[in-house]
Amino acid sequence: MVVEAGCILSAAKERAAEDGMFFPLALGAQGSCQIGGNVSTNAGGINVLRYGMTRDLVLGLEVVLPDGKIWDGLSTLRKDNRGIDLKQLFVGSEGTLGIVTAASLKLNPLPAQRATALVAVASLDDAVALYRLARRECCDLMSAFEFMPPTAFALAQAAMPDLVMPLSNEYQAYVLMEISGSGLIDVADLMQRFLELGLERSLVLDGVVAASESQARMLWNFREAMVEGQVKRGRHLRTDVSVPLSNLAAFVREAELQLAAELPECLAISYGHVGDGNVHLNVLPPVQTSEAERHAIIKRAKSIVNGVLADYRGSISAEHGIGREKMEEFRAALPPVQAAMLAAVKAALDPEGRMNPGVLF
Amino acid sequence: MVVEAGCILSAAKERAAEDGMFFPLALGAQGSCQIGGNVSTNAGGINVLRYGMTRDLVLGLEVVLPDGKIWDGLSTLRKDNRGIDLKQLFVGSEGTLGIVTAASLKLNPLPAQRATALVAVASLDDAVALYRLARRECCDLMSAFEFMPPTAFALAQAAMPDLVMPLSNEYQAYVLMEISGSGLIDVADLMQRFLELGLERSLVLDGVVAASESQARMLWNFREAMVEGQVKRGRHLRTDVSVPLSNLAAFVREAELQLAAELPECLAISYGHVGDGNVHLNVLPPVQTSEAERHAIIKRAKSIVNGVLADYRGSISAEHGIGREKMEEFRAALPPVQAAMLAAVKAALDPEGRMNPGVLF
Ligand SMILES: Cc1cc2nc3c(=O)[nH]c(=O)nc-3n(C[C@H](O)[C@H](O)[C@H](O)COP(=O)(O)OP(=O)(O)OC[C@H]3O[C@@H](n4cnc5c(N)ncnc54)[C@H](O)[C@@H]3O)c2cc1C
Ligand SMILES: Cc1cc2nc3c(=O)[nH]c(=O)nc-3n(C[C@H](O)[C@H](O)[C@H](O)COP(=O)(O)OP(=O)(O)OC[C@H]3O[C@@H](n4cnc5c(N)ncnc54)[C@H](O)[C@@H]3O)c2cc1C
Repeated sequence: MVVEAGCILSAAKERAAEDGMFFPLALGAQGSCQIGGNVSTNAGGINVLRYGMTRDLVLGLEVVLPDGKIWDGLSTLRKDNRGIDLKQLFVGSEGTLGIVTAASLKLNPLPAQRATALVAVASLDDAVALYRLARRECCDLMSAFEFMPPTAFALAQAAMPDLVMPLSNEYQAYVLMEISGSGLIDVADLMQRFLELGLERSLVLDGVVAASESQARMLWNFREAMVEGQVKRGRHLRTDVSVPLSNLAAFVREAELQLAAELPECLAISYGHVGDGNVHLNVLPPVQTSEAERHAIIKRAKSIVNGVLADYRGSISAEHGIGREKMEEFRAALPPVQAAMLAAVKAALDPEGRMNPGVLF
Repeated sequence: MVVEAGCILSAAKERAAEDGMFFPLALGAQGSCQIGGNVSTNAGGINVLRYGMTRDLVLGLEVVLPDGKIWDGLSTLRKDNRGIDLKQLFVGSEGTLGIVTAASLKLNPLPAQRATALVAVASLDDAVALYRLARRECCDLMSAFEFMPPTAFALAQAAMPDLVMPLSNEYQAYVLMEISGSGLIDVADLMQRFLELGLERSLVLDGVVAASESQARMLWNFREAMVEGQVKRGRHLRTDVSVPLSNLAAFVREAELQLAAELPECLAISYGHVGDGNVHLNVLPPVQTSEAERHAIIKRAKSIVNGVLADYRGSISAEHGIGREKMEEFRAALPPVQAAMLAAVKAALDPEGRMNPGVLF
């Protein structure tokens, strides 16, 4: 499907759906963000686990280059191995190499069946173990696997007071899991059998499967209300980091330990996309903290998180990009060889530095 | 999994299997080709439909740059959005920008279940329709969908005389289809139900499902022996083209019609990866043709195929790259804007033109 860069993401999704197809990119901003922005930030979102990032969904691009020439790379081929793949340069480069004017997008069959479950587990380690089991047992049909801490529910209820906690006991960690598909596979049955297996292996402690679209919506509301609940707590540290999956639990444990030791008054809350090794490890100062204090706390907390992250060879930006906000951090950690390569590529395509000055470079 | 560039592909696959994991890249050359070569050619093969090309399987690279510096981009992160993704430049660039010395590879669960079927269909159009049905009904579990013409069997038997045609009648087109997975989904049952659905919809005319590993091997032997059978026919035109899937049948029909009109003495044989829009449309001169005549025929046939291909905005290289052999064709069709972009990227990373002179540039 070829769309103009100015097409709003949700409109692109609707166009695909009219043809019975599915454009899987899904994120909170979909009602306002544009395909050109999604491409330029290599946007992720809740379906990455199954369908990949924007990079994996783009077959071709049309780009206006800094010298005003138009590059027509608007291919719709699924396979094309004619040497260097130029479109890759524009995906995720945050507008620093050219202006994307159109994109051809890869579509999937509409997932007509969906099974959503909220599952309680004993720890983040067990969440990772459950994820690995799900990958094997549910093959490629898992479309979401989000972990949340117990504090998530209190935060969510602060933002959406009429939310009802769907499990009756409190547990150390939760997973919001979704399997989806179309056609001959009975997705609800698969979810049921998977959870039974998880119980047998003592990885699943408790769980609830949504019995309807609206119950599924309610489970997702928890995930989204938790994010809103944080906003209500005033300015805080938000991160979007990634580590290798095998280090995920250790990274979170170590970072939370250091935060508890050095900033005991703050609430550290970690949630995210387990399968992608992508955690939002956020640090919330107490509600009554002044703006000036918040500034100092955020700075300190960020330096603690980034310190632990570096030990695990993680990324300070799994999804959200660098922009202007993370510029300083990004440049400070950039190895000289890589900085020189990036500068050479930038100079090759935008020798006068016209495109998005102050971003990335 | 991090491997050195010199690691033979089949050895990398074995290393993954020792950990119960699967490195899906699979091609005829796997006993001799190296990971560094696979990365540099963005190799494809029989599992692309499900797992993607080499590009989709690479998480990070280590590269020696033309100036002798080493770029350590050996990340194992699944998600990392820190601006321009430099590794993409080296994937598929055929050694023209640097020497890959190591790669970190994405692994999948081992597909412990596999169902293989040979299916007869009425036409390539029906093969495409059946593919679309399979994508919807079998979700993401389809790992191969190869189409073959009726001549395939004669060619295969020429190379492997003891092959037995597994279907009793002759049909206009065949599909070799494979579904695979691990865990809770009964893959054999899924294949059975899918073929029944195909029969109901009159897309499947006849078919046989392999009842054992060795029967599955036998079905794949047909596919492979067909390729060998062509080699026995002497020098001929081999292509590796791709077109948008919706044009696949029309492209093959049109190219074969033109070939039949202009080179009626030759045998045109089209087979390939339906789902990827990737066809090997090969043209075989009569067995007794002299080498000099073959040269002229191949040239003429190539120009016919490329002419039709251009009408469909196809690629002269879906999988195999450009190298030196397709250099001239590639450069002749390169739009000036793209040529300038490629030259700028090449000059940025390899200003002295040291790397693989004569390839791509
Ligand atoms: C509520 C909310 C939730 C979000 N959730 C997620 C999430 O879950 N996962 C995730 O990955 N991201 C998320 N994001 C970030 C989101 O990915 C980006 O906001 C979006 O993809 C950018 O698109 P945009 O049109 O808003 O671009 P803008 O914000 O306008 O621009 C983003 C960058 O791209 C450049 N740019 C924009 N258009 C073009 C173009 N046509 N050509 C070249 N450069 C261009 C801009 O210069 C800028 O550098 C979220 C954002 C919001 C506001
Ligand atoms: C029998 C057979 C079957 C095949 N089937 C398929 C198939 O189904 N699908 C498919 O896509 N391909 C197929 N191929 C092609 C295959 O993809 C390539 O041969 C293979 O990926 C290249 O790896 P290699 O180690 O042989 O590289 P080489 O052939 O040695 O090199 C290939 C290119 O990469 C460069 N290169 C090699 N190593 C490096 C390095 N470390 N750093 C930088 N540049 C490097 C070389 O300079 C050269 O330009 C097949 C080949 C054969 C012989």
